[in-house]
Amino acid sequence: MKVKRIEHVGIVVRDVEASRKLWEGCFGIKLGGTEDNATRRLALYPVGDSMVELLAGLTPDSKQAKMIAEGKGGLNHICLEVESIDEALAELKAKGIPLLDQVPRIGHAGCRIAFLDPSATENCLIELAELPAGGAHHS
Amino acid sequence: MKVKRIEHVGIVVRDVEASRKLWEGCFGIKLGGTEDNATRRLALYPVGDSMVELLAGLTPDSKQAKMIAEGKGGLNHICLEVESIDEALAELKAKGIPLLDQVPRIGHAGCRIAFLDPSATENCLIELAELPAGGAHHS
Repeated sequence: MKVKRIEHVGIVVRDVEASRKLWEGCFGIKLGGTEDNATRRLALYPVGDSMVELLAGLTPDSKQAKMIAEGKGGLNHICLEVESIDEALAELKAKGIPLLDQVPRIGHAGCRIAFLDPSATENCLIELAELPAGGAHHS
Repeated sequence: MKVKRIEHVGIVVRDVEASRKLWEGCFGIKLGGTEDNATRRLALYPVGDSMVELLAGLTPDSKQAKMIAEGKGGLNHICLEVESIDEALAELKAKGIPLLDQVPRIGHAGCRIAFLDPSATENCLIELAELPAGGAHHS
């Protein structure tokens, strides 16, 4: 498979607004955009040719809110951009690497994404993403 | 402060050699270099304008070996390249951000580095690095 770059690094935070103090106020990185679904908010910070993605739960029973409550916030996953996610998943399956997503699903910014099973990666959560034609589109 | 890019993402693994199967064999990323000190080995994988840094303890009482034994391996830290680490640390101190390194020390590839105290970052371990004049030099 062809890995092009680290597309983003995902960090689970309590509250995206509160975290802006660090990422914008201290590091001086400009917010690229935010993206909500029913349960979580993303804040995307472009840095070099990559991004920092802050994830915060919007409901108390969201995955992110539960992680924060259990002291499991912080660095969450690394996302690698691949040229073709279908090829990448086929290759990983052929090599016996277990996947959390057997087929790609739509993730942030219209990307087709899939997560590897952390059991295959010494517990490092790895996402693969193929950008939509025309590039990522943020809200 | 001026953050230029994600310089690397640090991942604690049991054994650098065993992890090559995933990073080289599956992801097809070429090893950029390795770097040992008395207690740990780094394996650096350039990806886009960033790197994945695998860290493995070389002794049973190394920090990394202890983390693995405690089930705390995996994603460990994110390193941001700054233009001037002296300016960055002065700015963070002025803003009341606690630091693990009050003054820069020499890290991977001859970089001048410092870690922020994770208490200031919702438990996300963040390293800042200023590259040596002439760029990073790997063994």
